[in-house]
Amino acid sequence: MKNLNTQPASGTRDFLPEEVKRREWAFSTIKSCFESFSFLPMETPAFERVETLMGKYGEEGEKLIFKILKRGDQAMSGDTDLALRYDLTIPLVRFFSEYRHKLPNPFRRYQIGQVWRADRPGKGRFREFYQCDVDVVGSTSLLADAEVILALTKALSDLGLHGYSVRLNSRKVLTGLLESYDIPENLRQDTLITIDKLDKIGVEGVVKELETRGLSKDTIERIRKDLSGNNLDLKEIVKNSSVGMEGLGEVEELMSCVKPLLTDGVIEFSPFLARGLNYYTGPIFEIYLNGAPGAIASGGRYDNLVGPADKHVPACGGSLGIDRILSTLSTGEQDDANMLTPQVFVTVWDHDSRAEALRIATELRNNGIIVETALEEGKIKNQVRLASSHKARYCLFYGPDEIASNQVTIKNLLTGVQTSINREIASILEAISE
Amino acid sequence: MKNLNTQPASGTRDFLPEEVKRREWAFSTIKSCFESFSFLPMETPAFERVETLMGKYGEEGEKLIFKILKRGDQAMSGDTDLALRYDLTIPLVRFFSEYRHKLPNPFRRYQIGQVWRADRPGKGRFREFYQCDVDVVGSTSLLADAEVILALTKALSDLGLHGYSVRLNSRKVLTGLLESYDIPENLRQDTLITIDKLDKIGVEGVVKELETRGLSKDTIERIRKDLSGNNLDLKEIVKNSSVGMEGLGEVEELMSCVKPLLTDGVIEFSPFLARGLNYYTGPIFEIYLNGAPGAIASGGRYDNLVGPADKHVPACGGSLGIDRILSTLSTGEQDDANMLTPQVFVTVWDHDSRAEALRIATELRNNGIIVETALEEGKIKNQVRLASSHKARYCLFYGPDEIASNQVTIKNLLTGVQTSINREIASILEAISE
Repeated sequence: MKNLNTQPASGTRDFLPEEVKRREWAFSTIKSCFESFSFLPMETPAFERVETLMGKYGEEGEKLIFKILKRGDQAMSGDTDLALRYDLTIPLVRFFSEYRHKLPNPFRRYQIGQVWRADRPGKGRFREFYQCDVDVVGSTSLLADAEVILALTKALSDLGLHGYSVRLNSRKVLTGLLESYDIPENLRQDTLITIDKLDKIGVEGVVKELETRGLSKDTIERIRKDLSGNNLDLKEIVKNSSVGMEGLGEVEELMSCVKPLLTDGVIEFSPFLARGLNYYTGPIFEIYLNGAPGAIASGGRYDNLVGPADKHVPACGGSLGIDRILSTLSTGEQDDANMLTPQVFVTVWDHDSRAEALRIATELRNNGIIVETALEEGKIKNQVRLASSHKARYCLFYGPDEIASNQVTIKNLLTGVQTSINREIASILEAISE
Repeated sequence: MKNLNTQPASGTRDFLPEEVKRREWAFSTIKSCFESFSFLPMETPAFERVETLMGKYGEEGEKLIFKILKRGDQAMSGDTDLALRYDLTIPLVRFFSEYRHKLPNPFRRYQIGQVWRADRPGKGRFREFYQCDVDVVGSTSLLADAEVILALTKALSDLGLHGYSVRLNSRKVLTGLLESYDIPENLRQDTLITIDKLDKIGVEGVVKELETRGLSKDTIERIRKDLSGNNLDLKEIVKNSSVGMEGLGEVEELMSCVKPLLTDGVIEFSPFLARGLNYYTGPIFEIYLNGAPGAIASGGRYDNLVGPADKHVPACGGSLGIDRILSTLSTGEQDDANMLTPQVFVTVWDHDSRAEALRIATELRNNGIIVETALEEGKIKNQVRLASSHKARYCLFYGPDEIASNQVTIKNLLTGVQTSINREIASILEAISE
């Protein structure tokens, strides 16, 4: 690979063996957690038809979609027909429409898979990353929203991450707020997008941006007052909005179900939490780890996205940002070093004994032992050095003496103790089982 | 998703829960097998820079690469800068160049991942499919070739697939043959490509195609004779080619190492096996399942692909076509139905008892039990019906009577037996542990 750039493409990553093992441990922990909630696994392809993804993520999101050029004669046109998936939610919507009659109702699914976004790469922001999603399709029950939050927080606990906080709101509360501020329908989405930036740009930043959105001075002043205030009486503010009151009821009930079950974190009402995507219709949430910037999980209810326009199927779900989580996890006990090191290193005495080396290795592997064979014959001392550097537990030899007496010699590389035993597999297994 | 096509994009597949579980079982079986050979896992991104992939797969292969359009202002140009990986070998070559000083030497790696090819979709031929690769980078030893073949065949055995045959050859034998036929250098690659089609188009087909390749009549006649003959004396044919004799020696030694260790299949010398890719330099092989068309695994030695042109690093490897294998595996014992069904279904008596339902579910899950909760309250009879249809083992109830006496009722859905027990988690766990 002469003078080519050998780094992975911008914003993507290679993973070395230890990292793969660490990630696999995290994925399997999350899977077990999701399965304990009776979520079922499903998978969709890496790419979808372009038209499946368009019009779902807003203008800014759409710019970040990786599109695939048509093949063959059509490549010259510059046209695209496929696109890498941007999240796991829109593929779920397509999947559910296609297979709904084969799926349980309600359908609780989980999916752990890569998504691709042409974001500007940065610290902790990648162009290829994994999402771990749980969703319940086919239920309006708040228990479904509760189970989604419980599954995501239990996954954090199972990964050893304590001290999270769940920020909860409902889109209906936000609608109630917007109604109470008398903001016209056509300005509401923009206003929400601005309010959603509160954490990042602060009250004055929000005010400044709202001034460019065409809201009245009075309205902006009311919003500034509410954003700045503590202990806001939301019931008082939205009392004239039936949808707002409904939202407050949802939040209250969800809090009462979930709060007593969180042992490693807290849940709090966050009335200005808006979430970027505009398909949410009910409860929405973000989960933060104490001391870490940015949400590590988020989700909400989206009752108008699944199924045909005249017969929507209610749904809710959430997503864990596993890459952010993995950078938070300290390397440690979860790195099961044994998984990566051979239990037995079989040396090769000389060219003629290569077949016998493979035979011993095969017999050991057939008994579930992880075995590395020396590929090159040569000085046994060098082979033992290689075995040690690969952190093998035992080294196995057989020279002419051993072959003559039907024996092998086994060296414990931790203690240095060396013993000669019968060549039979049973006695080898016994010798390495201490 | 109104009137959009809800099928996955042409040549790709969705996987329903049972299929995901079946595939995961196969992947984890293969992983354990590869790890027992001390192969280490590694991962690379789904896409690479276009220039990393170009010039590696031949003209036909290159046409099948999915290219990704540039983003932003450059999208209009129709230019591409990235491409989905076509196999796992070229990414390995890049990976090894980038990290060689962090990797063990020799580096034994495995990688299980998707690759994408814009092939015409057909029965058992997909545009997105998994490859399971093992490679040894940094050794010229034939033991490395042997271990690759042993790892792939053990994986087949571990998956319950018996009756395979390994067809073995060496590129050096082929070179020897071409030399003995006096075929000029510039026609050798084309001749190989034609001979490689022997299985598909037969001797007469090969002869016909060779006639268009510019070979002499005499040469074609000799090839026809050799292709038709049984018990060819290869040593006689290539005796004047030193590289040919070297190749025969390699094949012989590999056969003698591997043959006695194959319990579920055979290995045979296949002197006209050529393999499509032109980067192979030594032993090459294909593995067939008895009664199934097409190879399910293949590989070989490629000593001139890794590292800088003046300092190549020797390497060999092979790949299992897991999708072909999965279509061969009968659904059966490996479908661990229990993985997909809840052990306990927690019913919801009424609106006020929802929080208590979640609490019981949480306590059970914290003890490793797979639990589904009824999301909707309503007739208990309907909830039990749902539990049965989801194949839950136990159903758990608590109505006003139970709450008053601090009890729950558990129904065994297999036997229909129903018992009331103390609400404590310990007694619930005991009741469902029978």
